[in-house]
Amino acid sequence: MSYRAPVGQIDFILRHVVPYDQVARTERFAEAGFDTANAILTEAGKLAANVLAPLNRNGDLTPARLENGKVRSSPGFAEGFRAIAEGGWVGLAADPEYGGMGLPQVLNMAVAEMMAAACLSLQLNPLLTQGQIEALEHHASDELKALYLPKLISGEWSGTMNLTEPGAGSDVGALTTRAEPNGDGSYRITGQKIFITWGDSDMTENICHAVLARLPDGAKGTRGISLFMVPKFIPDENGNPGVANDLRVVSLEEKLGIHGSPTCVMSYEGATGWLIGEEHKGMAAMFTMMNCARLGVGMQGIGVGEAALQQAGLYAQERNQMGPIIRHPDIRRMLATSRAEIFAARCIALACATAIDLERATGEAEHAARAAFLTPIAKAYGTDIGLRAADAAVQVHGGMGYIEETGAAQYLRDVRITQIYEGTNGIQAMDLVGRKLADGGEAAMRLLDEILDGAKSAQADHPDLAHEVWHSAETLREGTQDMLEREMPQRFAGAAPYLTAFARVLGGYYHLLAARSGGEAEIGLARVFIRRVLPHFATDLTEALAGLDDLANLDDDVLTGQSGA
Amino acid sequence: MSYRAPVGQIDFILRHVVPYDQVARTERFAEAGFDTANAILTEAGKLAANVLAPLNRNGDLTPARLENGKVRSSPGFAEGFRAIAEGGWVGLAADPEYGGMGLPQVLNMAVAEMMAAACLSLQLNPLLTQGQIEALEHHASDELKALYLPKLISGEWSGTMNLTEPGAGSDVGALTTRAEPNGDGSYRITGQKIFITWGDSDMTENICHAVLARLPDGAKGTRGISLFMVPKFIPDENGNPGVANDLRVVSLEEKLGIHGSPTCVMSYEGATGWLIGEEHKGMAAMFTMMNCARLGVGMQGIGVGEAALQQAGLYAQERNQMGPIIRHPDIRRMLATSRAEIFAARCIALACATAIDLERATGEAEHAARAAFLTPIAKAYGTDIGLRAADAAVQVHGGMGYIEETGAAQYLRDVRITQIYEGTNGIQAMDLVGRKLADGGEAAMRLLDEILDGAKSAQADHPDLAHEVWHSAETLREGTQDMLEREMPQRFAGAAPYLTAFARVLGGYYHLLAARSGGEAEIGLARVFIRRVLPHFATDLTEALAGLDDLANLDDDVLTGQSGA
Repeated sequence: MSYRAPVGQIDFILRHVVPYDQVARTERFAEAGFDTANAILTEAGKLAANVLAPLNRNGDLTPARLENGKVRSSPGFAEGFRAIAEGGWVGLAADPEYGGMGLPQVLNMAVAEMMAAACLSLQLNPLLTQGQIEALEHHASDELKALYLPKLISGEWSGTMNLTEPGAGSDVGALTTRAEPNGDGSYRITGQKIFITWGDSDMTENICHAVLARLPDGAKGTRGISLFMVPKFIPDENGNPGVANDLRVVSLEEKLGIHGSPTCVMSYEGATGWLIGEEHKGMAAMFTMMNCARLGVGMQGIGVGEAALQQAGLYAQERNQMGPIIRHPDIRRMLATSRAEIFAARCIALACATAIDLERATGEAEHAARAAFLTPIAKAYGTDIGLRAADAAVQVHGGMGYIEETGAAQYLRDVRITQIYEGTNGIQAMDLVGRKLADGGEAAMRLLDEILDGAKSAQADHPDLAHEVWHSAETLREGTQDMLEREMPQRFAGAAPYLTAFARVLGGYYHLLAARSGGEAEIGLARVFIRRVLPHFATDLTEALAGLDDLANLDDDVLTGQSGA
Repeated sequence: MSYRAPVGQIDFILRHVVPYDQVARTERFAEAGFDTANAILTEAGKLAANVLAPLNRNGDLTPARLENGKVRSSPGFAEGFRAIAEGGWVGLAADPEYGGMGLPQVLNMAVAEMMAAACLSLQLNPLLTQGQIEALEHHASDELKALYLPKLISGEWSGTMNLTEPGAGSDVGALTTRAEPNGDGSYRITGQKIFITWGDSDMTENICHAVLARLPDGAKGTRGISLFMVPKFIPDENGNPGVANDLRVVSLEEKLGIHGSPTCVMSYEGATGWLIGEEHKGMAAMFTMMNCARLGVGMQGIGVGEAALQQAGLYAQERNQMGPIIRHPDIRRMLATSRAEIFAARCIALACATAIDLERATGEAEHAARAAFLTPIAKAYGTDIGLRAADAAVQVHGGMGYIEETGAAQYLRDVRITQIYEGTNGIQAMDLVGRKLADGGEAAMRLLDEILDGAKSAQADHPDLAHEVWHSAETLREGTQDMLEREMPQRFAGAAPYLTAFARVLGGYYHLLAARSGGEAEIGLARVFIRRVLPHFATDLTEALAGLDDLANLDDDVLTGQSGA
């Protein structure tokens, strides 16, 4: 499996599609100019292609396993993780005060895409560690920060996110894990957590669990939840791993894919933990972790989709059936539309990351609103496209695609999780039409206005493409207005297709910007997207506005297939 | 995994959606009235739910394996196959002269759906055996028929289809397997075949391989290919399995799914075979097998999709996250649209089978043209929907969907093959816009006229729904006219979305017919389909007519991700 990191395309997107120039002009990121950015991406691309990609198949064939209560990672993973840690990649965007490089999130996310493309199972570990670093930076006490951040940032220790319980998935507020004060500033944590990614490993000397639990006086629901730092080994007075904490891995899940990533059932049995942030404000800290992780998961979808398409494209070039099959119109259609969608998703995700950087550098609310609005789109569209691209890649291979040895099937199995974890794509869509339109549509309309303006300015260069984009944004503006006038359950019934429609219009806009500044390749991909993919936004919108009534009126027995009909 | 056979819905479709009444009025099928049909479906439903469904997980967990050159099937499969054979299900539609029941294909296909839903890996065996029975009935000499048909129809022996070679997949004409006359009416067959489903098993006492090979005087390409019967054991003078033939299973493939179905690499090493049909006319016989198998594969997609949706629906009823999740609008959307599409695909496939029956019973060319036109749609749409439904079923389960023990992932892995084998869905789409429009669009237009008329007659009962369907058929008529005026490569570039558009319009029509004759359930599903799914046909058609140029103009390096862009 060879993988070529799309450094050139990412560099192009930073220069011509997303406002990276604004990021580089801020004081905070003054040292992260285009040349620095390119050098970082090039280095990360080499690590991904040369060190991580060769491990991907190992993870699938020799899954992480549980031996005497300890997770033994897949062959080569420990060395791969070392290479990531020693390159400083875990702390790329972290606070320099604690050893981080303080670089923009947009570079961190571009790097995340490349590493995920190369070896998704392994990359999950630094991604979740980064989420924990973010949460600590924003919410933890100085003491906790001083103790944990340097170790996490250096990759000596790794971090996990403990949210889900058997009875509390999307409904986080239903959790039953208890936290009781010990009286010395620490707490006793008791409960069971499931779906804990990299809940244990032999790659780092300590594992830091960020665990949601309820204090004795915590209210029911999400308002009574606090977040705790529960290390596998309690740090001694020198900050080194000391005595073992009262927690253990109960079992690992057998999953469809990402076999190299151990998914743990964790048991906390009076484990010692320390509060991260304030009592009962655990959800705020968790959301900090999750927002970072959500965008990161979007990048995972894009990365795996890219890797799968590369493999399929190279196969199509070599495979002869009445000439190389890459010349067959239907094969070209699959590769070209998938590639155009991957480009669109990448632009959306990097635009989201840029907004995060601008918010951090300037503190302006407008950037925060843009980042918040784009996060669910970047997550859901990025992972939907990742699935579609990996699926198309299997199909391009024909019968060989169904044979595990080819590797195409692994991409499909692996990428499938990205639509589920860190909030299913349905949850993302509800977030978009719920919370993210709660400003009366201001963030949405601001974005649509930007597209309308941008399309107008592109009219002289690319009249047909610009017209299509302008028209789609105008139609979406009307659809958004319509959506805003609806009650929440009505919105939810169309949330997923609305998210897709928005993503496609955004994708058309970014492709148009790329066509304006790019060469034949960018113009070619823009034509494919705007003429073949973008049009689907219109019927996505029709479905989005079809409302709840027809769905609500169906008998449950019809939905379960237990009626005669 | 419980599975409830959709006997009630299939019965409804036969009575109110497809012209089964016409089939039952023919002399040939005079004994297959509605009551008989219902009794057969009910019996098959019981077999599927009670005997076959419990085997499905066995096949996944304990795959078929090769031991000393022989295939050992998954636990319980031999007993399952026995039950199918002894019930007479292999020969349901076969010639009574040789022990078949002579019943309509539409019943056979409905039964195939239920058995595939219950245990796809096992059902592949009788499906392929049926394809071989068809080929022998239409093309073989009386001697071959007398020797093989009774054994195949009774299920004592099973049949395979040997078409693909390492260098000859979609390009069948490139095959290199040789056939040399022995001078006694038999031939020596030499060559290697790949992707041979159930190429060996311990479930039947003999395996009959239908093998494509080239005679010494055979022309290059598909015109020089002949079809041979090559049994594992050469029948002795009493027609019982005699000496072993010179053929062997080289290896089994490790696949994404259908682990219970052994996919063999076969080696023919001077094996003895007998010509099926005429010299150099092997493709005609193979197409007889393939057309039957293609519709059968469409049914497989529908069946597995149905089974996956049932499981997901029941889970959604039980799983509580702020109330049962089946009440959540986005979960309902996934279940309802998938179910409405499965219903549409089922109607299309059963309409295709009905046309086959009417052609056989009346010999009228119109029915043959209808069957030929609907076959690629039934195969590709049925399997595309099967995939989408199984994918939605995983998503409905959330994190549990990614855990293998849940079973949702197996449906997704299993159904993925149906879009690939018996001609990839891309090949189906090219068949539709190529060969199936080669009549100048007569068959297509006749079908569209029927939809337009049907929609008009429904206007009084369901004005809104009827209008949508009428309008979509009219738009598709114009799109089809446009397609007909194009050169073949231009058509091929839009073949897949054209097929989907046609399927959706057809689906809208059949839902409308169902709403006219049905109750609340049918009207409810029709509303979901016509308002939420059907509208997508319009942008499918836009993509279908976007032409080849944008695809052709892209550099191959852009498609493979090897350029900078």
